[in-house]
Amino acid sequence: MKTTLIKNGTFITMADTQVVTGCLEIQDDRITYIGSTPNQPLDQYDEVIDGTGKLFMPGLVNTHCHAAMSLLRGYGDDLALQVWLQEKMWPIEGKFTAEDVRFGTELSILEMVKGGTTTFVDMYDHMNEVAQAVEQSGMRACLTRGVIGLCPPDVQDAKLKEAVQFAKDWHGKANGRITTMMSPHAPYTCPPDYIERIVQAAHDLNLPIHTHMSESRREVQENEEQYGLRPVAHLEKLGMFARPTLVAHGVHLTDEEIATLARYDVRVSHNPGSNLKLASGIARVPELRKAGVLVSLGTDSSASNNNLDMFEEMRLAALLHKGVSGDPVAVPAFEALQMGTIDGAKSIWLHEVGQLVPGMKADLIAVDIDQPHFYPKTNYISHMIYSASAKDVTDVCVDGQWIVRGGECLTLDEEKIKYEAQACFERLTSS
Amino acid sequence: MKTTLIKNGTFITMADTQVVTGCLEIQDDRITYIGSTPNQPLDQYDEVIDGTGKLFMPGLVNTHCHAAMSLLRGYGDDLALQVWLQEKMWPIEGKFTAEDVRFGTELSILEMVKGGTTTFVDMYDHMNEVAQAVEQSGMRACLTRGVIGLCPPDVQDAKLKEAVQFAKDWHGKANGRITTMMSPHAPYTCPPDYIERIVQAAHDLNLPIHTHMSESRREVQENEEQYGLRPVAHLEKLGMFARPTLVAHGVHLTDEEIATLARYDVRVSHNPGSNLKLASGIARVPELRKAGVLVSLGTDSSASNNNLDMFEEMRLAALLHKGVSGDPVAVPAFEALQMGTIDGAKSIWLHEVGQLVPGMKADLIAVDIDQPHFYPKTNYISHMIYSASAKDVTDVCVDGQWIVRGGECLTLDEEKIKYEAQACFERLTSS
Repeated sequence: MKTTLIKNGTFITMADTQVVTGCLEIQDDRITYIGSTPNQPLDQYDEVIDGTGKLFMPGLVNTHCHAAMSLLRGYGDDLALQVWLQEKMWPIEGKFTAEDVRFGTELSILEMVKGGTTTFVDMYDHMNEVAQAVEQSGMRACLTRGVIGLCPPDVQDAKLKEAVQFAKDWHGKANGRITTMMSPHAPYTCPPDYIERIVQAAHDLNLPIHTHMSESRREVQENEEQYGLRPVAHLEKLGMFARPTLVAHGVHLTDEEIATLARYDVRVSHNPGSNLKLASGIARVPELRKAGVLVSLGTDSSASNNNLDMFEEMRLAALLHKGVSGDPVAVPAFEALQMGTIDGAKSIWLHEVGQLVPGMKADLIAVDIDQPHFYPKTNYISHMIYSASAKDVTDVCVDGQWIVRGGECLTLDEEKIKYEAQACFERLTSS
Repeated sequence: MKTTLIKNGTFITMADTQVVTGCLEIQDDRITYIGSTPNQPLDQYDEVIDGTGKLFMPGLVNTHCHAAMSLLRGYGDDLALQVWLQEKMWPIEGKFTAEDVRFGTELSILEMVKGGTTTFVDMYDHMNEVAQAVEQSGMRACLTRGVIGLCPPDVQDAKLKEAVQFAKDWHGKANGRITTMMSPHAPYTCPPDYIERIVQAAHDLNLPIHTHMSESRREVQENEEQYGLRPVAHLEKLGMFARPTLVAHGVHLTDEEIATLARYDVRVSHNPGSNLKLASGIARVPELRKAGVLVSLGTDSSASNNNLDMFEEMRLAALLHKGVSGDPVAVPAFEALQMGTIDGAKSIWLHEVGQLVPGMKADLIAVDIDQPHFYPKTNYISHMIYSASAKDVTDVCVDGQWIVRGGECLTLDEEKIKYEAQACFERLTSS
């Protein structure tokens, strides 16, 4: 058993709104103590870390990402959505090899862990590569092979089989750091009967479902035209919400749809940066929260964001809904921090991360608060939401292992990943 | 004469959308050359800087700030506007001494220069302290004593006299780095006759005017109730726009008001972060730009933002108006970068900064682009807007002087400023 004590630290535990100053004890992969004084004499610990000038908080949870798409960061911005997808994203993504997915994912993981994200949801293809990258990095992830069903039946069958195999192979792996889900990509990319088959597979595997839903106004209109129902009613009818479900976006929702999501305990991953950049609109987050829907935050991919800074998503969530609603108390700082930590964890059915309390897994980050933009020392919850960025993170611990120290990632080879990601991009766009 | 060459650099000049790779030459306070190869043999330069892995661009221009209010960062967030002002801001600001203004301003300047802002507009009180801090820091600033006229005539007279004296004393000082303006604080804090006197003083001094205008819906309504006119017509009637004018906010504007601003060449400082946080609303930036109004960006104070990261304001400007308008090409990256650099400079009548071209003042910043969130090397203009933050800035040059190197400010004592700012805050809130 390895024991670590962080002393002289400032802690946002997310158990309540009070900041704790003092000590936090880690035994192996779990937090075992938090309090103003050490739990035992300092010489009893394997390691004592001086937390002076650092703020410690739960690691951030990014509940919607396509990590490999970092290879397309900045490739085709400021374009109309269909042009962006059809002329830029899809032709290149169609060429992605397993190796591209590996390096793109590693580039994203590097950016995420250095910026304080300890858990992410990933929906993509070549998922064995993604899972291996997660395992190597030391990060926590909820992974799913997203399937698009606009293809012949035999290809549909093959994709579903692959998704099931991946979900079976990796669920609970990497000391439990990896969990899996089943994912029909979206109601507009999967025929109804295919969605029903994927839902059935999720039942068989006893796994949750992740999908894109109601991201753009056009998608909602087309769903109504094609199926006579808006996406929420359509997916409800297909039985999806009988499974635990996390939907990404949920931008265009009626009051009735919000009530339906609340009734089924469907979770919504709010992606404010991506929704703004793609001009999809602004999700009704205050209304969702008021209805009791669990709302978390996602970056979406670096192709539509274009970064994976969860501090920025928390800040956008706190700022945007004030400005849009005209209510300066809409989404206060603490609620934005909940969305980025504990509510993110709950959204993917992880009940042992997201708070710094004894018994929880040791997933935590350190922020350098001895910088001008964190003075005066008024309110650190406010400072984390309104003043902090990914670049303020210095140390990251996941499952009791320090994977970032002094701003350096200890588990991945940064120079190699940057080099290889650049090479992948050049190869993909040269032919 | 001191000559410096930056070699192996990547340059966003803002003269056009092309990125230049190669060299930039500085002689004393001016840029004298930019091109793919050095202008003269390397041994002819006093200093040769290796720009490998760095992106150089014009320093950012923050066109609306109250720097001293950094002392109130995080003090009273997530409150209704009137509660925030009346119960939190005003009682403490009323106690601000010259010393408080000095340390609050230095704290802000430190944050700004380390984050790549080379020029700022400041409207506050105790402006001699602000000007001295600017002079010492090496930054560029356009300063103005903001006057509130809700006071007896003798106090009005004294404030105006002080504002005039400050404007005279400091205009053109610090090797021309400091310019001044005249500022009635806002139409709702200055009686009409007092605004007319301030406008007359600006005429007499041949200086521009800066004011807050149409920030909140309530302000516009009350202006109509009190004066029978919306703020734009009210200020037009008082003769303000006969002087060169920069207004902050301009959130609630009709088409007709936008046309009026365009006709008078009134410049608008868009403060997206502050406007969202205070729930003021979202300015009609695409419409303003389409009408030919010069739009720049401001952070407002750290009490309502709560940081002075101009990269964030540029990103908000690029993201927000896409999401609100539903148009994914509203405010493209290059336009957001214009708003943060060259258009900011033009907005305060500085015609020698904001671009990296020969003949311009050497106001430039270096960004560390050898980081995961800037890979692949697709489009650096996009990367600066959608992926960068203040923390990516490593070096800052103003007027040919390097005031930040390797992330350290060379002109101000960071440890002392953080200590003193904290002490000021504690004293202000203890009694």
